[in-house]
Parts: sequence; structure tokens; C-alpha cells
Amino acid sequence: MSKRISDDDDDVGKEKEAAADKISSGPSSNRVLPYVAHKVGVPPKQSILKEFTAAVKETFFADQPLRSFKDQSNTRKFVLGIEALFPIIRWSRDYNLTKLRGDVIAGLTIASLCIPQDIGYAKLAGLPAQNGLYSSFVPPLIYAFMGSSRDIAIGPVAVVSLLLGTMLQDEVNSKEDNGYEYRRLAFTATFFAGVTQFTLGFFRLGFLIDFLSHAAIIGFMGGAAITIALQQLKGLLGIKVFTKKSDIVSVLRSVFSAAHHGWNWETILIGVSFLTFLIIAKYIGKVRNKKYFWVPAIAPLISVIVSTFFVFITRADKKGVAIVNHIRKGVNPPSANEIYFSGDLLAKGFKIGVVAGMIALTEAIAIGRTFAGMKDYQIDGNKEMVAMGTMNIVGSMTSCYIATGSFSRSAVNYMSGCHTAVSNIVMSFVVFLTLVFITPLFKYTPNAILASIIISAVLGLIDIDAMKLIWKIDKLDFVACMGAFFGVVFISVEIGLLIAVSISFAKILLQVTRPRTALLGRIPRTKVYRNVQQYPEAIQIPGVLIVRVDSAIYFSNSNYVKERILRWVTDEEAQLKQKCLPKINYLVVEMSPVIDIDTSGIHALEELYRSLQKRDIQLALANPGTLVIDKIHASEFPDLIGKDKIFLSVADAILTLAPNNEI
Amino acid sequence: MSKRISDDDDDVGKEKEAAADKISSGPSSNRVLPYVAHKVGVPPKQSILKEFTAAVKETFFADQPLRSFKDQSNTRKFVLGIEALFPIIRWSRDYNLTKLRGDVIAGLTIASLCIPQDIGYAKLAGLPAQNGLYSSFVPPLIYAFMGSSRDIAIGPVAVVSLLLGTMLQDEVNSKEDNGYEYRRLAFTATFFAGVTQFTLGFFRLGFLIDFLSHAAIIGFMGGAAITIALQQLKGLLGIKVFTKKSDIVSVLRSVFSAAHHGWNWETILIGVSFLTFLIIAKYIGKVRNKKYFWVPAIAPLISVIVSTFFVFITRADKKGVAIVNHIRKGVNPPSANEIYFSGDLLAKGFKIGVVAGMIALTEAIAIGRTFAGMKDYQIDGNKEMVAMGTMNIVGSMTSCYIATGSFSRSAVNYMSGCHTAVSNIVMSFVVFLTLVFITPLFKYTPNAILASIIISAVLGLIDIDAMKLIWKIDKLDFVACMGAFFGVVFISVEIGLLIAVSISFAKILLQVTRPRTALLGRIPRTKVYRNVQQYPEAIQIPGVLIVRVDSAIYFSNSNYVKERILRWVTDEEAQLKQKCLPKINYLVVEMSPVIDIDTSGIHALEELYRSLQKRDIQLALANPGTLVIDKIHASEFPDLIGKDKIFLSVADAILTLAPNNEI
Repeated sequence: MSKRISDDDDDVGKEKEAAADKISSGPSSNRVLPYVAHKVGVPPKQSILKEFTAAVKETFFADQPLRSFKDQSNTRKFVLGIEALFPIIRWSRDYNLTKLRGDVIAGLTIASLCIPQDIGYAKLAGLPAQNGLYSSFVPPLIYAFMGSSRDIAIGPVAVVSLLLGTMLQDEVNSKEDNGYEYRRLAFTATFFAGVTQFTLGFFRLGFLIDFLSHAAIIGFMGGAAITIALQQLKGLLGIKVFTKKSDIVSVLRSVFSAAHHGWNWETILIGVSFLTFLIIAKYIGKVRNKKYFWVPAIAPLISVIVSTFFVFITRADKKGVAIVNHIRKGVNPPSANEIYFSGDLLAKGFKIGVVAGMIALTEAIAIGRTFAGMKDYQIDGNKEMVAMGTMNIVGSMTSCYIATGSFSRSAVNYMSGCHTAVSNIVMSFVVFLTLVFITPLFKYTPNAILASIIISAVLGLIDIDAMKLIWKIDKLDFVACMGAFFGVVFISVEIGLLIAVSISFAKILLQVTRPRTALLGRIPRTKVYRNVQQYPEAIQIPGVLIVRVDSAIYFSNSNYVKERILRWVTDEEAQLKQKCLPKINYLVVEMSPVIDIDTSGIHALEELYRSLQKRDIQLALANPGTLVIDKIHASEFPDLIGKDKIFLSVADAILTLAPNNEI
Repeated sequence: MSKRISDDDDDVGKEKEAAADKISSGPSSNRVLPYVAHKVGVPPKQSILKEFTAAVKETFFADQPLRSFKDQSNTRKFVLGIEALFPIIRWSRDYNLTKLRGDVIAGLTIASLCIPQDIGYAKLAGLPAQNGLYSSFVPPLIYAFMGSSRDIAIGPVAVVSLLLGTMLQDEVNSKEDNGYEYRRLAFTATFFAGVTQFTLGFFRLGFLIDFLSHAAIIGFMGGAAITIALQQLKGLLGIKVFTKKSDIVSVLRSVFSAAHHGWNWETILIGVSFLTFLIIAKYIGKVRNKKYFWVPAIAPLISVIVSTFFVFITRADKKGVAIVNHIRKGVNPPSANEIYFSGDLLAKGFKIGVVAGMIALTEAIAIGRTFAGMKDYQIDGNKEMVAMGTMNIVGSMTSCYIATGSFSRSAVNYMSGCHTAVSNIVMSFVVFLTLVFITPLFKYTPNAILASIIISAVLGLIDIDAMKLIWKIDKLDFVACMGAFFGVVFISVEIGLLIAVSISFAKILLQVTRPRTALLGRIPRTKVYRNVQQYPEAIQIPGVLIVRVDSAIYFSNSNYVKERILRWVTDEEAQLKQKCLPKINYLVVEMSPVIDIDTSGIHALEELYRSLQKRDIQLALANPGTLVIDKIHASEFPDLIGKDKIFLSVADAILTLAPNNEI
């Protein structure tokens, strides 16, 4: 496929180059060789089956997951397969005390962060507090065995909790029959979220989540953070009657209509002072000194302990400060029998599960990739999905709701010096101890503290720097970002998500429908032809119009491309006429960026050829790529325009068509 | 924007070229100038508003519809506006007798073809025969005033009739209450089809129909033709009890289960003999001699006249030969009051109208473009849509159902020598006379004749040559084509359509998710770098890996692109190690085909840079385009990799990074 030569081979045959030089240096030279254009390569013909296999391989197995399985004995293949499914087997072999030390510290740190968050997030999802803790016990354990990321911290996260809560509340009332039906639907959704994740990974369809653009995710996350923070005003201000809607208008109306009789000053005092404490802690950890990363990590737990103790001493709950009250003691009860496998709620649970599962996956994969990039190891997206799917399926049977990778906790995990997924096991163990021994102690924890913890956690999801960068780099991306953001803030989480996905798709489609075209000119003192808009010094060749098409020519744009090229010709001819310059004899279409063409595209070229014929202009193509030359040769197009009208490069084309103009 | 120089300017300054040549010719030269790489152009910064306006203009007004309005007085603008809305005003000015002669002949020919087809197609749509004729009276008249195609023949067409019939029958029963509700829903659908077409054109969203690929249309049309032909077996074989489903299995079962008692031999005799006659006529017109194009054009009318006379004489209808029986005499009755503007059927009519309207539009635009291309005039897709929309809105109020451009009749129109839309007016007038005077004469026309006429007409829609060409050019296109074809034949028209649209979209998305990448090498005796697979003679440069990315780098593929490039590096390094060749020092990414990049894409480049750093490889970019360099400069990427690592071309990059290897 590729040959490499040693340096001394480099000097072979410069006849053509020399010939070109001679011609260009004009009459002063005495040896003028006729110029022969280099032929355009046609790749060796492949069989359809081979082509098809290659396409499937590149689409679904781009990362060559089976590479290591090649040329191995069957036993070895089996071992490798087990290792692929449970990466822990491989990395545990060279696990040592140093790593353990880092993992234990990291595990304890994220545990202290996750316990208060879990309780808060469970409330966000409309579920009892213990379900949040359950979800930080079972899923991280399973992930530790199956996952390939070393830094991700698994558990419930704010955005997915909010999304799940909103979607569940649209279907069933969380207050009715003590929330039994609601909880069952939550487990059903979790089950199908897991199934979705597993399926995507197993069938190697992981690339589907790439269709949600970075910009849309930033906007969605930011909007969700604002929505979540606003929802926390209920707890922070001690409001009893609150809207069920999540849009900013309803929430603020609800807040201000409760201002006179619904706010509780003791609650506000506790909430605001601890929120201030948490934000200061965050500031210390982030801005002042990276050494103090642990300050914001343990601040929430300290807040919980201090405030719980304070409420217990002062019995502030008698004065209207809302408290957590009861958290069920003991480990996860089984819930497999509570999942709906039939009836009306099956379909609803399925729908919610698919949406929430995809979002959870998007977040987890983004986190996994970020930290893998920092430590320079590879994670296999599809294998990650299988791990996530398994952990949520098992989770749904053990009273957990959807768990995924948490941005804030993963960052803390990374900074505390975790080495492997053992930190998740440590965290899981701490949560286990909490469930078994100390949950009753959370009875007097004020809701206002949970609200402050959630607010301070989600503020980190609003990534203003990223938004600024998006604005600077790509305006359309920014529209997608803001669309998702305002959709979530002003309408609802689902609508925001829908806007994000739609704009992401529209962007792809728009680019394919209206590709750019450019007029090329020769850059002085070179044989390089470039866009005259980008390189104002570039010089157009008299009698030749060079147009570059910046896209594959497909059915969706073939007609546009044809008409746009003809418009370049018309415009240029009008200009030339005005200036009394010679008319255009040749149109060279630079095909370098034309990465593919289909039947419609070839039709468009044929039509272009015919239209040009009527204006007495010859059509030539420069540098068609592998796919394009293949398809052009399969059609009758080369016979139509003449095989000698397809050139290796624009410079070659000019050298042949307008030899006097070449330098 | 562009400067053009006269020939004698061409010789200015060849210092750099000379310098490069000197370096490459090695120690033999005595004057070695230091090589200075040409700078990559950064296009002048545009204001956001300007950029936005340009983007909107290119997306919606690519054809510059307001070009002629520029710098005109208000009165003139008004006149131009009216002319734009009614192109007849402009072309009627230089209308003359020669043109009239051509138009009258063409008009009479297509009238003779359309009258029997109309009756048949109306039956296909489940409507009374006269509605077909109505639809060839009003809509062509309106189109003649507003349309810009000179060759299209307007009226009911087979595929749209079938689609409308199937979708209507899914909603209401055509036999109930004498078909009143069914007819009302048909007018409602026609109304909304018109509204859809008008809206698309008015808001310049015409490019949306370009998303249905050529291949998918070929497949869909072919499948619809087979389905329609199969449905005609009912009429051709004289079967009384027939399935309502349109898939091939149901229809054939229906046909063979009726074999013993349901077939009528007199009907078969009439049907088959006239079908043979029609096919021979078609053969004469097509294959033998273009001069005889009128033979297939008038054959249907002759068949109708002869067979009607024959049935009337022999009273074959008494022997079970089904006849048309009653066609209402007189012109179109008003039907505006029959359109549903409220209630349940409004939504259904709307849905059917949108789908059928889009398909009708796709067919009409395809025809319009084909014939405009043949005669080399431009048609404005959006203006055509406004004309089509108006004609169908008016049609829905005058008892017509959806009319559009017919492939077969337009071809006959073209071949009969039509010059303008006057041929449609002539046809319309003939249909008017038919409605007023001779419809009662159709009473004894056997249904079998209509079936033969439809079969012979739709056979032309199966374009096997086009299918073969698609197979040769693009296998994935062929899958789309066959998907649509078999979807229509084996399931239903709507499913086939859905398959066609889905595959068309999937194709675009797939290309954007998994773009190609290629390894480049220098073509001997040139400074041109090309894909080593396409040009096996290309030579790779020792110590440098040159990778070309064949697509815009977007969120949907940024991660893949990054990982694919790293895989090239890994693979190449493994090979080099095996051969004990020097390691890779530089990775040059050829960006010519990278037409755009977004924030995710820039992130991917940054990650690529970091991964390469760890392997001690320098990253360089070659030839980033206008959009890309703009966005790269907006980010901090150039500072990261070093501004001197962005080159005008691969040759420039090699000259700087590995000067000893350049020729």
C-alpha cells in the first residue's frame, strides 16, 4: 500500500519538472521539452464484497476492537474476551500499594462529596433520599469491574435526575399512593436506559451519541444548571407551595408570590450562609491554589454535619425549617419485580429510559474522553456503553435510578490522585457503611443545606468560557448552544434537548445543501492555486476560470453546485466584458475537496458540461480523489468531456490548457 | 475581490521558485537562498451581520431572484414583480404564429393522451372519472400563466394518484355514503398540498425537496409503477372482488384466488389485445424512429374510441365486460365549501396533503429541470413551487385533485414541438370541450382499456438503465434505490417513501460521521502530494507522515478523525520499527478537503497535538481553507502548535520540515 524510500532515491528523474521549468522560463532557455501532464491515478478496482466489508469495518469497528484477538489460540482468545469484558482483570495484575493509597484517598473524598449530593439529586428526581444513596452503591461497583475509564466517578447526577424527574412527573403523580407507581416507573425507565446503553454499545452504534454537538451539550447543561438552581429556591427559601413546572417564568412567579407569607427566614439564614461557605470553598479550591482542591470536596459534608447538629440542638425544625426527616436504613432492597414489563406504563418507561439513557451516556462518554485525554490512555466508547448499560440494568433491579459519570465528582477524583476504578469501589463501600449505620443521623439535616449543595454543584455546569469560545469560533454553533440553553430555561428540559438535537442535525444538513465554492488564482512566485478571497494577492489566469467546490457533490447539493458554478461563470463573463478582456475559454473545477460524488452529482457535472458547451467554454477537472475518480470512470463522463481534460492538479491543467500563463 | 493580470505580468519575481529549485538541485548549485515558506492567508475579518446576511443569502437566495430588481424605479420594480409572478406577460410579447403552430400541435397531442389517462388515474385515486378530467382543465390553465417551464404538461399523474388513493383509503371508506366524505377529504388534501407547495416556494425552502435523492426517486417511481400495474390486473382480467392492499403478495393472491371463477375472458381478450397494440405503438415511437413519436401519443385515444365502439356494437357489457358507465357532463363544479377546515379530518387531510404535495413537487421539479436543461433555459424552483401551489389551491376549490407535471406527457409535449405553456392552454381547452360535449360517449369504454393504458404508461417509469448506472456508480445509492423499490412493492407506498427518505438522510449523516482519511506521498518528478492508494507510485517522505482528512471536522466526526489519525501514526510506526527505519518526527495534516471546522473539531486538533507531543511528534497543518483558518485563528490553537507550523501547502511544509527530502 505504501512504499518508503531512503533519502538517496529522492533525486530520480526530474525531467518533467525540468521541462516545466524550461517552458516557464520562456525563450531564454534553449531546450524546450513538450509538457506531458501527469495522469490522474485510478485506484485498483476492488470487489463489491471487499468494499462493503471495508465500509462496515470503518463505520462500526473504526477502533479495531478485535485487533489483539488476531492470530491467537482459542484459549487465549477466550481469556482476552473475558479481559475485554472485565478490564479489572488486566489492570489488577500490576496493582500496587502506591496506587491503592491514591485510590483510597480519592475514594474517601468523592464519597464525602457524593453522600449529600445523592440525597439532593434523589429529591430532584422526585424519589426518596435513600434511592440516591442506593445508586451510589451498586452501579459504581459494577462499573469498577467492567469500565475502562480510570477517573470517572459513578453515581446519580444533577441533569439526568432533573430530566428523569420532569419526564416521570409528566406521566404519573409522585405524591399519589405514596409514590409507589412513580417509583416503579422510575425503575422501569432505569432498566430501559440500561438496555439502550447496552444495545448501543453491543451493536457498536456508539457513534450515534456523537450527533449531539459539543455546543448543544454546553448550552443544554448550562440551561439545566440554571433550571436546577432555580428549583432549589424552594428549599433555600423554605417555600411550601411551589410550581411543578420548571421554566424560569413559572418558578420566579411561584417564588415571588410566596414572598409575603411563604418564605421562612430561619431557613433562608441557614441556606444562604452555608451557600456562601460552599461558594467560598469552591473559590479557594479552584482559583487560589490547586493544592486546596480538597476544600470544596469536603465542604458539603461539613455543611451537612454542622447544620444537622445545629438544627438538632436548636430544634429549628419546630420553627418551620424543613428537614429531611426519614431516610430508610439498610442496603438496597430488590426491585426487579417492580419494573413494568407490560401495560401502558411499559411504553412510557421505555420512552423515558431511552431519552435519559442517551443523555446519561453522552455525559459519561464526554467525561471519560476528557480524563483519558489528560492522562493519555484510550477508552473504548462502545465498551464503556456496555459497562454503563449493565450497571443500570442491575441498578434498576436493586432500587437504584439512572447512574452515570458525574462531572464534578470525576474532577475531584482525578485531582485527589485516583489511579484506577478502585476509588469507585472505596466510595461504594463508604456509601454502604452510611446506608447501614448512619442514615438515621440525617434526620435533622435541613433541606436548605441540600439546596445549597446542589446550587453550588450545578453552578460548575455553566461553562461561560466555553460559550465565549464557541461564539468566537463558530456563530452557528453558538446559536445551537443558546437555543438549547434558552429552550431549557424558558420552556422545559425536553424541549431544550429537542432544540439542541434539531439544530445539530440542521447544521450538518445545511452544510451538505449549500456548500461553499471559491474562485482560485495563482499565488505569485508559486504554482499553488488558492481562493482569491483568502489570498488577495492571488492572480487569476486570463481565459481560464478556476472554481473550487468545497464539498462532496450529492443529490442534496448537486443542483446547487451546478447552478453556483454557472453563476461564477456568468458573473465573471459580465466583468470581463465590461473591462474588454478576453472571454473565458476554460473552466477548471478544482475537485480536491470533493470527497465523494453520487449519481446526482455526475448528472450535475454532465449538465454543467452541456451548459458550458453552449457558451463555448471547455470543462476540465483537477485532482479528483479516489472515490470520485472511481465513480466518474464508472459513468460515461470521461468520454463526454474527453479523458485528457482530467488533470492531476490545477497547475497541470493550466500548464496544458493555457501554457503561456504558467510561470 | 479578484484581480486579473495581462499576460506580460506573469513573469514577475520568481525568487522563491528559484530558491526552491536551487535547494532541490543540491550541492551542484552555487547560489542557495534560504527558503521562506509562503504565509497562509487569513481572509479579511467580516462583521457578524455581514457574515449572517451572506449565509442567509446563499441558503435561501442562491439564485439571486432579486438581481433584476436592482437599481430600478419603483414603477419598473412593480412591473418586474408582476412579470415575475406571471411569466406569461414577458414571453407573450414575442409570441408568434410559428410558436403557436407548434404549441397547438403539441397541445392537441397531449390532450389526446391525457383524456384516457385522466379517467384511469382518477380511478386509481378512488375518485369519479370526471375529477380526473377536471384536474386537466383548471390547473394547466393557471400554470400556463404562472409557471416558468415551457415543456411541462400539467395534470393528474399515476404515482401521486396512487399515493393519494392509498392514503385516503387508510382514513375513510371510498364506498360509504356514495364517496362524499372521501371526496371531501381528497379536496382537503389537495388544498393542503397546494398550501405546502406555495409555502415552500414563498419562503424559498425549495431546497428541502433536494433531500430526496435521485436514486431514491428512481426506486420509488419504479416500485410505484409495478404496484400500479399490478392493481390494473383487476380491470384487465375483469376481477370483481379485489384486495384493497397494494403490496405484491396480497395482489397476486387476490388475482390467483379469482382465477377459477372471477376472470372474464371477454375482458381479458379486449384488455390484452389493446395492451399489445399500445406496447407496439410505444416501441415504434421510441426505438424505431423519433419521427413517429406521435404514434404512442395518440394510440391510447384510438384504443378508447375503437374499444368503446366495439363494446357498444357487441353489447359486451352484458357479458360481464366492466365499463366506465357514467361520467358527469359539464365543467368543474365549485368545491371550496367541501374542504374540511375543522374537525378530525382536517388534520388527516393536512397530513396527506403535505406528503402528496411534496412528492408531486419533487416530480414536477425534476421534469422542469430536465427539459430546461435540454433547451438550456433556467427555471426558478421556488417560483415553480408558488405556481404549483396556486394551481392546486385553486384546483381544490374547483373539484380537482392534486395535479402536477407528468413525465410521459411532458416528453410527448417536448417531442411534438411545444414552444411555450400555450400547449397547456390548448390541452385545457380540449379537455373543456370533452367535458361539455362528449363525456357521455365514454359510457361504453371498457375498464380493461383504461387498465391497459395505465399499464403501458407506467411501464415507462421503471428506469432500468438508470438503476444499472446507479449500481455501477454508487453501491450505497443502489441500496437506497432498491430499498425504496422493494418497500413500495412489498409493503406499501408510504413505507417505500419512508425508506427512501431515511436512507437518503442516513447516507448524508454517515458520510459526515465516518469521513475518509488518506496517507499522502509525493508523486515522482513533481511537488504534488497525493493519496498513496490512488497513486501507488507516490513516495512517502522519511520521518514525515502526511495524512489528509476528507471532510469538514465537526462534532459528529471530530473524535473519529482524531483517533483515525492516531491510528495511522501507530500503524506507520509499527511498520517503520519492523523495517528499522527512522521514526516519524512530523505529522502533516493536509487540510485542503477540510472545508469547515467547529469547536469540537478544534478540540480534537488540540487533543491530537497533545497525544502527538507525548510520542515526540510535531504537528503541522497544510492549506487550511478560508473558514478553517478563520476559526483556527479565533481559537488559541496557533499559539499551541506554533504559528510557523501552518503551511500554504504540503510541499511547503516538507520544504521547511524535511528540506533534504524535497526534490
